[in-house]
Amino acid sequence: MLQVPVISVVGWSNTGKTTFLEKLIAELKKRGYRVGTVKHHHGSIELDKPGKDTYRHARAGADAVVIASPEKVGLVRTTEREWSLQQLIALLPDMDIVITEGFKKENTPQIEVYRHGVSERPAAKAEQLIAVVSDIDLEREVPVYNWNDAAGVADLIEHKFLR
Amino acid sequence: MLQVPVISVVGWSNTGKTTFLEKLIAELKKRGYRVGTVKHHHGSIELDKPGKDTYRHARAGADAVVIASPEKVGLVRTTEREWSLQQLIALLPDMDIVITEGFKKENTPQIEVYRHGVSERPAAKAEQLIAVVSDIDLEREVPVYNWNDAAGVADLIEHKFLR
Repeated sequence: MLQVPVISVVGWSNTGKTTFLEKLIAELKKRGYRVGTVKHHHGSIELDKPGKDTYRHARAGADAVVIASPEKVGLVRTTEREWSLQQLIALLPDMDIVITEGFKKENTPQIEVYRHGVSERPAAKAEQLIAVVSDIDLEREVPVYNWNDAAGVADLIEHKFLR
Repeated sequence: MLQVPVISVVGWSNTGKTTFLEKLIAELKKRGYRVGTVKHHHGSIELDKPGKDTYRHARAGADAVVIASPEKVGLVRTTEREWSLQQLIALLPDMDIVITEGFKKENTPQIEVYRHGVSERPAAKAEQLIAVVSDIDLEREVPVYNWNDAAGVADLIEHKFLR
């Protein structure tokens, strides 16, 4: 079902997942890949500011609002129930790779961000874990990268999923 | 190509297109339809606030960012060139009807919002015009509705496109 390769960056809160993801996205972009990301969000999702036109469409009850500029497209839509990762990925058919932040219950390959003093036990599922990114040296059954080594992780991703 | 019925609310600036659309959306929702809207946007399109996680993904170079809550999904993506209306509509496959605000150059059926003193000449294409919504009485070859009569316009839309 998932034609675009999907990998998940997982880890407990405050391990620095977003910071590592920023480095990884920038590295993959530098190598010429089209990168999409997916994340859960627990607050409200708005595309526009209060008073602006598409905000008014949404407030009037529109189930979905699309806005288009010459360089970007934005969509916000209601869903009857929480969408599966597959439904979310289907919004990104033309990416070379999709990276989720979190979604650790899904069966995607996982990279765990480990931070000394924060990560007390593994966040990733052992059978899906392909790498660990850490601020300290660790012994693991999968490759462990220093968390500044986005290039090393990008090499692994290219090798496993993009060639 | 367009399986979901698509109609366009057109009119010159400051005729009250968004205000009329709010009423029409609310009326169609009251009748049980799933309504999507599409609009051009000339500023930046952001899904998240500066400093928040998906904003950081986008700033790091992600070509597309999806966020998902239990009730909503949001997507912002870059496009190589401005997407066609058909590409935009393809984001909304499960709506009962899609209403565009503007897009008057497209070949969709058009409803013109006319406002006395503002609308000096027609904004809609005569061959696509299905109705006019106006703040004054007008003589036209298509039905003319008072601009508070969202119910009348919804009747027309139901009759022409939703039955």
